[in-house]
Amino acid sequence: MTPASTDLPAPLKALAGRADDALARALPGDTLPPIELHRAMRYAVLGGGKRLRPLLVYAAGHALGTDGPILDAPASAVEIIHAYSLVHDDLPAMDDDDMRRGRPTCHIVFGEAMAILAGDALQALAFEILAESPAGDDATQRIAMLRTLGAACGAEGMAGGQAFDLSAVGRKLTLEELERMHAYKTGALIRASVRLGALAAGCHDDALLARLDRYGHAVGLAFQVRDDILDIEGESAVIGKTAGKDAAADKPTFPSIIGLDASRARLTALVDEALEAIAPLGERGEWLADLARYSAARGH
Amino acid sequence: MTPASTDLPAPLKALAGRADDALARALPGDTLPPIELHRAMRYAVLGGGKRLRPLLVYAAGHALGTDGPILDAPASAVEIIHAYSLVHDDLPAMDDDDMRRGRPTCHIVFGEAMAILAGDALQALAFEILAESPAGDDATQRIAMLRTLGAACGAEGMAGGQAFDLSAVGRKLTLEELERMHAYKTGALIRASVRLGALAAGCHDDALLARLDRYGHAVGLAFQVRDDILDIEGESAVIGKTAGKDAAADKPTFPSIIGLDASRARLTALVDEALEAIAPLGERGEWLADLARYSAARGH
Repeated sequence: MTPASTDLPAPLKALAGRADDALARALPGDTLPPIELHRAMRYAVLGGGKRLRPLLVYAAGHALGTDGPILDAPASAVEIIHAYSLVHDDLPAMDDDDMRRGRPTCHIVFGEAMAILAGDALQALAFEILAESPAGDDATQRIAMLRTLGAACGAEGMAGGQAFDLSAVGRKLTLEELERMHAYKTGALIRASVRLGALAAGCHDDALLARLDRYGHAVGLAFQVRDDILDIEGESAVIGKTAGKDAAADKPTFPSIIGLDASRARLTALVDEALEAIAPLGERGEWLADLARYSAARGH
Repeated sequence: MTPASTDLPAPLKALAGRADDALARALPGDTLPPIELHRAMRYAVLGGGKRLRPLLVYAAGHALGTDGPILDAPASAVEIIHAYSLVHDDLPAMDDDDMRRGRPTCHIVFGEAMAILAGDALQALAFEILAESPAGDDATQRIAMLRTLGAACGAEGMAGGQAFDLSAVGRKLTLEELERMHAYKTGALIRASVRLGALAAGCHDDALLARLDRYGHAVGLAFQVRDDILDIEGESAVIGKTAGKDAAADKPTFPSIIGLDASRARLTALVDEALEAIAPLGERGEWLADLARYSAARGH
């Protein structure tokens, strides 16, 4: 039995604020040319959001004994990648969404061309931030961090998951196909966030990195199952987007494939799996445990 | 007086073939899922092209005493970035081009959504390739290479230049504005290609890197001036796109701002500037000199 947590504990809330500050500093100023591009980039990243990925970086770093500003760069990098992916996902040629987090989407405000460019520039910025960061024990570990981010973003990660998603439209997926799609589309970057936090903290323990990877896999999937359940149960005003939208769009979801009760059971099992994976970390893994529970219980 | 060179010398032609081979190996196989995404990525990159950026990597590496396969990774990375930028530039929301290099553009063949994703995945792949490469003296120099690529791609590089270009539509540019736009849009990646070749060869000489940067700046601009002149002089069948298209679209060009004769004079001056910058390299800089002359004299 997993205790529910619909809200984040105070230390993690404070870290979400720290991520916001780090992001505001990392993004180019919107008084410098190309001004419109810089504005679009800032709009896309600084428009709120749960900051789950930066929190995973901070929590994994904390679990490995590091809380310093050294985690700000990887935390910013993963959130910037996430923000760019949302900008491109929302485009008319993709999901064609006009609203995101209660605000008009980037292409509605800045136009499609600028939104494409803002996404492109954000992806490059994430790699640049990580390449300029002094995180990790040495340059070799920093290279490993850059490789981790690159793999998580590409055709065998986030972009690949989006391609699986595209090819799934109008087709019934099996549970395995749905899980693979999510493991790529959102799971890859969530796993990378956990791993980057650990690497930034100087972790060289492959067995522990593998455990953290299992944790990240379970949390990423739990987050997605919860999303699908919220789409059915949630109120639009609370979840910040139209409830029932997935079902209306005939998108494959966990409830549509295995039913609502089985989805809830799967959610509980995933949280237990995540907690089991990080059990050896003991109290240091407390924030990671909080995030696992939050991913499964959040109200929006 | 600069000798004209409308074609590349044999060693550089051979290196263009080597770049093609390296790219074919670096790209994900199109029998593996997500198949359609992998196919779109390969289509975008392996569809011909002058391979100018990989050649600049090989030529700069050669000038610094390295010809080994160690240059293949940076050569592939810069071409993959270039290819992704073309895919996104050709999108309906951007330049809306149906043909590129005598073939239908990526979004015509694979659809807009897949073309956006292919571009996104290609950008990530370029960083991944570079992060996995053993080029450079050590990990610290590899980090510098990744930083170089990141800066060249982002809002203060290629994507920023594209934003300047967007904001220039329907407006008369000054010569300075036009040169700034090109210095960002194509110049940044061309300068990065030269620098990456030098860094991959283990160059730590800042004065020489600055000279190579001046060379790259001049070559990038020369390439663009030549493009504008070809748009007026060239035959559509030879240049692979519609001649007179820029003028018809009222795009700012060097001839439209300073006239055709002054554009030709500027081209000659840029080649001289490029050759002067690499003069201390002597014979080792021969390929770089060939590429400077070729950029200014090429017939397509």
